[in-house]
Amino acid sequence: MKESMKAHVYVTLKKTVLDAQGKTVCQALRGMGHSSIADVRQGKYFEIDIADGSDPVAVRAEVDLIAREILANPVIEDYRLDIEE
Amino acid sequence: MKESMKAHVYVTLKKTVLDAQGKTVCQALRGMGHSSIADVRQGKYFEIDIADGSDPVAVRAEVDLIAREILANPVIEDYRLDIEE
Repeated sequence: MKESMKAHVYVTLKKTVLDAQGKTVCQALRGMGHSSIADVRQGKYFEIDIADGSDPVAVRAEVDLIAREILANPVIEDYRLDIEE
Repeated sequence: MKESMKAHVYVTLKKTVLDAQGKTVCQALRGMGHSSIADVRQGKYFEIDIADGSDPVAVRAEVDLIAREILANPVIEDYRLDIEE
């Protein structure tokens, strides 16, 4: 029996966009004495369960479309996609 | 020359905690016709750059402590840690 598929989508601000939230976390950590932390960038993470019986190829295209057009804002954000089959 | 280390921390709500944000994203996607989406859970993602010359073993312990005590709330959240050396 086939395990159901799961997709992981990671959305981060583009490198050229100032990540104020990440900078704040970084400064807080360094202020607490964690001097080995050089930089922090914060992003969003989505864990998507796919309905049983879906076609893997179609699912990959569909989740890529969802990540690009809905979960990420392509003007300021990058996304990365992992699919567990 | 050694590449600098990078840590990735993924923080998600525990399975037993209702993820209202993820449920809303899931319902929105299904409402838009993406019927192969069974469930969505949303979390936080931190990309941490480690200062050059840090000891890999000490860094892993330090980032684990930071993830457990600062980035995640252990009462309601789980975290996962990946370190690129």
